[in-house]
Amino acid sequence: MSWKDNLIKIEPYVAGEQPNKTDFIKMNANENPYPPSPEAIKAINNFDGANLKKYPSANAVELVKTIAEYHGLKPENVFAGNGTDDVLSLCFRAFFNSKKPILFPDITYSFNTVWCEILGIPYEQIRVDADFNINPEDYKRANGGVVIANPNAPTSIGRDLDFLRIILDNNRNCVVIVDEAYVDFGGITAIPLLEEYDNLVITRTFSKSRSMAGMRIGYAMGSKDAIAAIYAAKDSVNSYPVDSVAQKAGIASIKDEKYFRETIARVIKTRENLTEKMREMGFKIPDSSTNFIFASHEKYTAKEIFEYLKSRDIYVRWFNKPRIDNYLRISIGTDEETEALLNALKEYIK
Amino acid sequence: MSWKDNLIKIEPYVAGEQPNKTDFIKMNANENPYPPSPEAIKAINNFDGANLKKYPSANAVELVKTIAEYHGLKPENVFAGNGTDDVLSLCFRAFFNSKKPILFPDITYSFNTVWCEILGIPYEQIRVDADFNINPEDYKRANGGVVIANPNAPTSIGRDLDFLRIILDNNRNCVVIVDEAYVDFGGITAIPLLEEYDNLVITRTFSKSRSMAGMRIGYAMGSKDAIAAIYAAKDSVNSYPVDSVAQKAGIASIKDEKYFRETIARVIKTRENLTEKMREMGFKIPDSSTNFIFASHEKYTAKEIFEYLKSRDIYVRWFNKPRIDNYLRISIGTDEETEALLNALKEYIK
Repeated sequence: MSWKDNLIKIEPYVAGEQPNKTDFIKMNANENPYPPSPEAIKAINNFDGANLKKYPSANAVELVKTIAEYHGLKPENVFAGNGTDDVLSLCFRAFFNSKKPILFPDITYSFNTVWCEILGIPYEQIRVDADFNINPEDYKRANGGVVIANPNAPTSIGRDLDFLRIILDNNRNCVVIVDEAYVDFGGITAIPLLEEYDNLVITRTFSKSRSMAGMRIGYAMGSKDAIAAIYAAKDSVNSYPVDSVAQKAGIASIKDEKYFRETIARVIKTRENLTEKMREMGFKIPDSSTNFIFASHEKYTAKEIFEYLKSRDIYVRWFNKPRIDNYLRISIGTDEETEALLNALKEYIK
Repeated sequence: MSWKDNLIKIEPYVAGEQPNKTDFIKMNANENPYPPSPEAIKAINNFDGANLKKYPSANAVELVKTIAEYHGLKPENVFAGNGTDDVLSLCFRAFFNSKKPILFPDITYSFNTVWCEILGIPYEQIRVDADFNINPEDYKRANGGVVIANPNAPTSIGRDLDFLRIILDNNRNCVVIVDEAYVDFGGITAIPLLEEYDNLVITRTFSKSRSMAGMRIGYAMGSKDAIAAIYAAKDSVNSYPVDSVAQKAGIASIKDEKYFRETIARVIKTRENLTEKMREMGFKIPDSSTNFIFASHEKYTAKEIFEYLKSRDIYVRWFNKPRIDNYLRISIGTDEETEALLNALKEYIK
C-alpha cells in the first residue's frame, strides 16, 4: 500500500495546444484577435498596488453590480468567478445533486463530461443530428439537469428563444444551464427568459468577446435562489476567486460599450469573409454565431489540413473524437491572419 | 418536486467580517499592513494589457519556475493556483481518495472541514492539548491523509522539524500536507524534508508575508508524482486558475527578496512589542510564529473585548467555537494601528 494508491484517477480536459514559440498564427483557442478595451488596460496600469495587501471583495460586489446593471438585472442575480470554467464547475456542484443523469449534447463543450466525472454526477449525452443540430424535444426525459451551450461549441451553431423555450418548458424541475460564452458574436441571449424561468442559469465569459482570456473572469445570471446556491458552493471551495485587479479591469471593460461593439463587429465581418472564401474552396461550414467556424472539406481530411497548417505555423483546432474528427475549429483572427490562412489553404487545395 | 431540491446543502466557510466603511482598523483577516513589493506593483502598472486577449500560461510556467528556483526545487515540484484555498482544495481532491478518515487537529484552519464536507472525504479531528499543542504521536493511526498547519492557526504556534518527522515517519502511506501559510513570520519550513518524504506536500500563500491577498496566488511543493496529481485535479476543474497579471506580479515579488525580508522584520518587531504590552495587561498569549497573536484575558471574556474593540472601530477576529471562544485572533498591523489597539485596550482594562 502506497500513498499513490489514493491519488485522483481522472482523464483531465486538454486545452488547445500552446506552441513553444512566438512566431505563429494562433487560431486554436477561440481567443479574440484584438486587445481588451483601452479602459480595462488603463484600470490595470493605474491600479493602486498598495490595495493588494487586503483581500479582494469576496463576492466581487462592484463588478457584480456593474454586470447586473449592464444586463438590467439585480446584483442578487449575478455571480462572478475566476473564468467561466470556475463558474460552471461551481454551477455543476451547486445544482446537480440528483441521482438522475444530467443531459447535454454529445457534441458540445468537452469540459462537461470532465466535471461530471470529478464530481460524480451521472450524465447522458444526447446525440445531435447529422448536421450537428440539437433537437430540443430530446431533452424531455427524466433528468437531474440540462446543460446547453448556445451558440454551441465547437459547432458554432446558435439557436433562438423558441428552441430554448421547448427545453425550459419540459424541464421545470431541474436547473437548465445555458452557456453563452460565444453569444456576443451573433447569438440570441436567453436573458429575457430569466423572468419567466427561475431554474434558468446563464453563464458568460470575459475571455472571448471582451478579449480578456488572460484575466480570468466569468459570470452566471439567474434567480436569487439559484445564484445563492453558487455562492454557497464558492464559499465552500475558495472564498476569493476574483482578484482585485481583475475586478477593476472587468468593470472598466463593461463600461466601454463602444469599443466592445466595434471589436465584435470586426470579428463578425472577418468571419463572414472567411466563411465565404472557404466555402468557395469546397469547405462545408455551418453558419457561425461565434468567433470561430467549424469546417470540413469534401476532398481532404481535417487531420491532413490540420497537420499541413501546423507545418505552415498556423494553429487551428482538430478534435480527434468520434463524429467531429473530420472537422476543424478555426478561431477568427485579424484580417491579416485570415489572409495568411486563406493563402495557405489555397496553396494546399489547388 | 422542485429544482431547488437538488441544490447544494452545505455550511460554507465564513471569512473575517469586512465592515462596510473605510475608517476603521482591520486586524481580523491576517492581512499584511504593508504594501506588496514595489516591483510587484510595477509589474502590474507596466503590464502589457494587449496580452490579455490570450489565455494565461495554464500551468503558470514562469511563475512556477521562479518559485522553484527560489526554494531550490525543480519546476516539476511546484504547483501554483488561485490562492492557497484553491491549491488546498485541489490537494484535498488530488490526495484524499481513501475510505479512511483524514486527520487534522480540532483547532486549525477551519476550511479543512468544509472541503471534507463538500468533497465527501471522511475526517477525524484530533484534539490539541489545553495549551493548543498538537501531539505528533496522535497521528499514528489508520488514516487517509494528514493535514497540519505549521505554524498552526488560529493558535499562532509553530513547531520544529522533529515534530514533523514524527508525523511523517508514522505516515508513509498517505499524503501529509503541511500548510505553511504563516511560516515566513518565524516558523520553521518543512522544505528540507521534501527530499526524504515523497508523500510530503507543503502549501504556501502570497497573501500574508508577500502582502498580495488581493492578487490570489498560492502554491504547493512536493514530489513530482504528488504535484502531477494536483495538476490532474486542476485540469479537471479550471484550466487557467492564475491570471497573466498575477503571474507577472508574483514573479516580481519573489525576486524582491530585500523588501520581503524588511517587511517581515517589521511585522515581527511589532508583534513582539504588542505581545509584551498585552501580556503586561494580563493577556495570556502563546509565542507567535505568525503575523497574528492569539490572546485571552484572565478577567474579561474575549467576546466582550471583541465587541468593545468593534465599538472603537478596531476589528479583530473572535471565533464563536468550542475551546477557542475565549480567545481573540489579532492580526499584526502597523505600529500606529498597534498603538491605537493598545490604547483602546488600556482604557478598557483599567
